[in-house]
Amino acid sequence: MKLMRIGPAGAEKPALVDAEGKVRDLSGHVADIGGAALSPEGLAKLAALDPKSLPEMAVDRIGACVAGTGKFICIGLNYSDHAAETGATVPPEPVIFMKATSAICGPNDNVLIPRGSEKTDWEVELGVVIGKTAKYVGEAEALDYVAGYCVSHDVSERAFQTERAGQWTKGKSCDTFGPIGPWLVTKDEIANPQNLGMWLKVNGETMQNGSSRTMVYGVAHVVSYLSQFMSLQPGDIISTGTPPGVGMGMKPPRYLKDGDVVELGIEGLGRQRQTFVADR
Amino acid sequence: MKLMRIGPAGAEKPALVDAEGKVRDLSGHVADIGGAALSPEGLAKLAALDPKSLPEMAVDRIGACVAGTGKFICIGLNYSDHAAETGATVPPEPVIFMKATSAICGPNDNVLIPRGSEKTDWEVELGVVIGKTAKYVGEAEALDYVAGYCVSHDVSERAFQTERAGQWTKGKSCDTFGPIGPWLVTKDEIANPQNLGMWLKVNGETMQNGSSRTMVYGVAHVVSYLSQFMSLQPGDIISTGTPPGVGMGMKPPRYLKDGDVVELGIEGLGRQRQTFVADR
Repeated sequence: MKLMRIGPAGAEKPALVDAEGKVRDLSGHVADIGGAALSPEGLAKLAALDPKSLPEMAVDRIGACVAGTGKFICIGLNYSDHAAETGATVPPEPVIFMKATSAICGPNDNVLIPRGSEKTDWEVELGVVIGKTAKYVGEAEALDYVAGYCVSHDVSERAFQTERAGQWTKGKSCDTFGPIGPWLVTKDEIANPQNLGMWLKVNGETMQNGSSRTMVYGVAHVVSYLSQFMSLQPGDIISTGTPPGVGMGMKPPRYLKDGDVVELGIEGLGRQRQTFVADR
Repeated sequence: MKLMRIGPAGAEKPALVDAEGKVRDLSGHVADIGGAALSPEGLAKLAALDPKSLPEMAVDRIGACVAGTGKFICIGLNYSDHAAETGATVPPEPVIFMKATSAICGPNDNVLIPRGSEKTDWEVELGVVIGKTAKYVGEAEALDYVAGYCVSHDVSERAFQTERAGQWTKGKSCDTFGPIGPWLVTKDEIANPQNLGMWLKVNGETMQNGSSRTMVYGVAHVVSYLSQFMSLQPGDIISTGTPPGVGMGMKPPRYLKDGDVVELGIEGLGRQRQTFVADR
């Protein structure tokens, strides 16, 4: 299934995309795409519906495909080529940082370039959405706790991240720095999360063109690993790191300016398009 | 006002403490201590109630004093003496890191020592609770966005924090690593948040005995500073750093073991008491 959330920010309705690509209203069957709706039982209930029985919806705005996210966890330097381009080495175990959940926005919303920013950068990432509470789970069973996958744009301000006194979260948490969606694609539709093409363009020019195949610590490892340090809850999002091609890795570095358009996508998970605008 | 949340975890009811120290049920007037209830208007509505008109409550368990926290933001190395004891220097601007909101628990709940932990440590901190959305606010107006204060115990696993590949969040986010409360004390009751005595004992022995007077970046500065990087929402908690006396600063370092009892408190904000238990 492809699940989405449609409507004005803060008032989205749950929806699914049918086999013909029509968007159907789920609000008669589930309150939102989050919490218990993401459990195996919750998803089975939605999968049992006949999409044709659901009202078609006009798509005005697409919201983030998950509601009620308690944690937005990111894995740093998780593609060996990306680590190299930033001058870092691949870490001996996953690097974890948090993005503020208040950064989450819809996949095609404008992204605000924060006041004082000169180094706003892009990062296409595979997002993993947790479906049931995971704590101390092994790698072999880790995917049982995953509801599905989505495109995650880990927008980053490099000066805030690395030049403004310790800890990356400062450059990762600005409002609108977390476009999520368009769809939460349930895991039954993704045969292998470690073999998905992923790309990102700035003003039509391809900047990132990689695959989750070159991820250092794969999805199952990351879910298991995180669950040793903290419990994961339904609706939590893990953004699993970016392949090469970010702006800070270019010579000279290149950053986003007011009016730039970024498009990105992952095979089977849809695409996003954002206009970057100065937050005046 | 002193606001609290009373009842089983996940089913707490809102309450207030009256002038005689009796706990009174607020659930007929507000859904929870969080969100709009923390706004100046929401707090004024509660302040206008006659406490004697509210039912008395039995206090079985005290929950975290704030509900619906979206961000749990911590300031690192924010007391010059604490920075020195950890071998760090005072940063040129506030160091920010995030604690998972899933770490939040009641002030007297057991704290779980995570599997594999050998360096679980304590940190008494002044917690600041946001009352209305703050973005790009100046230092002079910053306290207008604060609902009140609470005791925050920033429990920390030092090996996870600093020896397990980058970014502190890994050692700060374990389940139950965020006892909050017992009370949210509204800011009108705290004449000066930069002059509060704070203390922490382990098994009755005083380990921390400081004052928010020696905080490097004060509450108003921190709120203003954070709001330049991300918007703050009602219910967000900022834990503002710890004075000297943590276990990792001792020679030799001293960490918490199964069965240890930690008590801590801040002048005017009440006290907490936790038993630390191995998470088997």
